[in-house]
Amino acid sequence: MHKTYSLRNAKAPTQSQLQNPPPPPATTKSRFFGKGGLAYNFRTRTAGSFGPELSRKLSQLVKIDKNLMRSMEVASMERRDAARFLSQWGLENDDDVSDITDKLGVLIYEISELDDQFIDRYDQYRLTLKSIRDIESSIQPSKDRMERINEKIAYWHYKDPQSQKIEVLEQELVRAEAEELVAEAQLSNITRSKLRSAFYYQFDSLIEHSEKVALIAGYANALLELLDDSPVTPGETRPAYDGYEATKQIIVDAENALNDWTLDYAQVKPNLSLKQNQEMRGQFYEEDEEDLPETENVIVTEHVTKITEPVDLRPSEEAT
Amino acid sequence: MHKTYSLRNAKAPTQSQLQNPPPPPATTKSRFFGKGGLAYNFRTRTAGSFGPELSRKLSQLVKIDKNLMRSMEVASMERRDAARFLSQWGLENDDDVSDITDKLGVLIYEISELDDQFIDRYDQYRLTLKSIRDIESSIQPSKDRMERINEKIAYWHYKDPQSQKIEVLEQELVRAEAEELVAEAQLSNITRSKLRSAFYYQFDSLIEHSEKVALIAGYANALLELLDDSPVTPGETRPAYDGYEATKQIIVDAENALNDWTLDYAQVKPNLSLKQNQEMRGQFYEEDEEDLPETENVIVTEHVTKITEPVDLRPSEEAT
Repeated sequence: MHKTYSLRNAKAPTQSQLQNPPPPPATTKSRFFGKGGLAYNFRTRTAGSFGPELSRKLSQLVKIDKNLMRSMEVASMERRDAARFLSQWGLENDDDVSDITDKLGVLIYEISELDDQFIDRYDQYRLTLKSIRDIESSIQPSKDRMERINEKIAYWHYKDPQSQKIEVLEQELVRAEAEELVAEAQLSNITRSKLRSAFYYQFDSLIEHSEKVALIAGYANALLELLDDSPVTPGETRPAYDGYEATKQIIVDAENALNDWTLDYAQVKPNLSLKQNQEMRGQFYEEDEEDLPETENVIVTEHVTKITEPVDLRPSEEAT
Repeated sequence: MHKTYSLRNAKAPTQSQLQNPPPPPATTKSRFFGKGGLAYNFRTRTAGSFGPELSRKLSQLVKIDKNLMRSMEVASMERRDAARFLSQWGLENDDDVSDITDKLGVLIYEISELDDQFIDRYDQYRLTLKSIRDIESSIQPSKDRMERINEKIAYWHYKDPQSQKIEVLEQELVRAEAEELVAEAQLSNITRSKLRSAFYYQFDSLIEHSEKVALIAGYANALLELLDDSPVTPGETRPAYDGYEATKQIIVDAENALNDWTLDYAQVKPNLSLKQNQEMRGQFYEEDEEDLPETENVIVTEHVTKITEPVDLRPSEEAT
C-alpha cells in the first residue's frame, strides 16, 4: 500500500476528537497469544496457502473475508445477548428504568438484526470476488502450457537445431499465444466488471447498514431523554412513570424510519473536490478544467443517483 | 422483552428490501457446535454465574459486553487484513486496477481504525455499567442484614414472645431500615445517572462510527467510478491510466471529511412523531396536545443539540 496517501499517517486529532477526547484503549485488548487470540492468528496464517499461483492472492482475500464474516456473526449474536440481558436486568428496577431498558434492548436487538443482514450481503460480495478467483484459476493452465512449449523449443534448439520438432512446436506456440490472448482479455474484462459490482454492492450495503444504525442510535438517545435522572433524597418517592406511550411511539417511529429507508434517502454524502462525470467514468474529467475552481466541494448528486440504480451493479444475478 | 412493540415481528419487507431484494443467508453461517461456534457458546453460558445476587444480572451484561468487544476487535483486525490482501492482489493487475484497489484498501483500513476507536469507547460504556454493578454489590450486605434481623425477630417471637431480645432487635431493625433507605436512594440515583451517561456515550459513539463509515463508503464508491470496465477485445490494449491524481484527491477528501466530522454535523436524525421538550424530559410532553397534529414528524433539532453537549454526559469522568 502506498502509505503516502494513506489515512493512517494522519496523526493529528480529528475535530470530533478535539470536541470529545478519545478514551484509553479498551481493557479487553491485551491478551495471551498476541492480538486477537489464538484462533485469529491461526486462521490468518493459514489463509490461501494452496491452489494455483495466479489466484493465490485472491484466495487469501476470500478466505480472510470469510473469517471476517464469522467474527461479525459472533459479534452480532453477542450484541443480541447484550440486548436480552439489558432488558432482563431492567426488569428488577423501577418502572421507568424497566420500560426504557426494555425498549433500548429492542433497539439494540434491531442493530444486531441489521448486522445479520449486512453479513448476508457481505457474503454476496465475497462470492463475486470468488468468481474472479475462479476465472484466475481457470486461466492458469493456458499460461502453464505456453511456458512448457517455450521450454521445449529452447531444449530442441540446444539439442538439435535442425529438428523437425521445432517447427511443429512453434506452430503450437502460435495457437497457444492466441488462446492466451483471449484468456487475458476475458480475465481483464471479467475482473473489472466483477470488481466494480462486488465493491459497489459491499459499499452500498455498508451505507445502508451504517445509516440505519445511526438512525437507531438517534432513537435510542430519544428514549434516554425519557429517563428521569433527577436525584431523590432517602424516603422520597419518584413521580409515577407515565412514559409507556412515548417509548412505544419511539419504537414505532424507529420501525417506520427503518422500513422507509432506501439508498435514495441516504443522508451522508461524500464531498468530492474533483468533479466526476458519469459518462466519462474511468477517465479523469479534464475537458472543463477552467470550471474546476467553481466546482470545488460540490456534492456529487449524479454520482449518488448512479449507484442507486441496482440494475447492472448487483452481483446477485452474476454470482448465482 | 415485550415482543408486541418489538421490531422483530415486522416481517413485511422494508422499502430498501423491495428496491434491492435481500440475498440468501451467508454461507458461513451453518457450522458445527451450533450458531457461533464452540467458544461463543461456552463464553455465553458461563457469563455472570457468580457474585452477589443483586448484581448478577448486570454482571452478565458486563461480561457479554466484554465478549462483544473481543469479537469486534477480531473482526476489526480481519478487516485490516482484508484491506492488505486486497491491495496486494491488485498489485499484480493493470495500473488502474492496482491503483484503485490500493486506495480501496486504504479506505477499508480506515474503517477498521474506526472500529478500533469504537471499541475503546464501548469499553468506557462498559466500565460505567460496571460501576453500577459495583454499587449493586455494595448494597447487598445491608439488604442481607435486614433479612437476618427480621428472621431473628420471627424466631424469638416464636420461641419466647416475652424475651428482652426482641426489643433490642427491633431497635436494630429501625437502624438497618434507615441504612437501607439511604442505600436504596443512592442506588436509584446512581443507577439512573450512570445508565443515562453510559448509553448516551455508547449511542453517540455509535452515531459517530456509523456516519464516518457511511462517509468512507461514499468515497469508496467514488473511487470505483474511476475503474474502466468497458470490455476490450482480445489483443486490444486499454487506454493508459491517468487517474492517480483523482484517486489521491478522493483519499485526501475522505481524510478531510473524517477529520472535520463532529456530532454537530451528524446528518442522520431521528424523526419523532411525539415532540420532546428538554425542560420537561422524563415526562411525556402533554401541555400542547392541540399542537400534536402539526408537529408530527418534526425533526427534533433541539434534542440533537442537547446530546452533543459533552459536559455532564460523558462517563469518562465518572468511570475513572
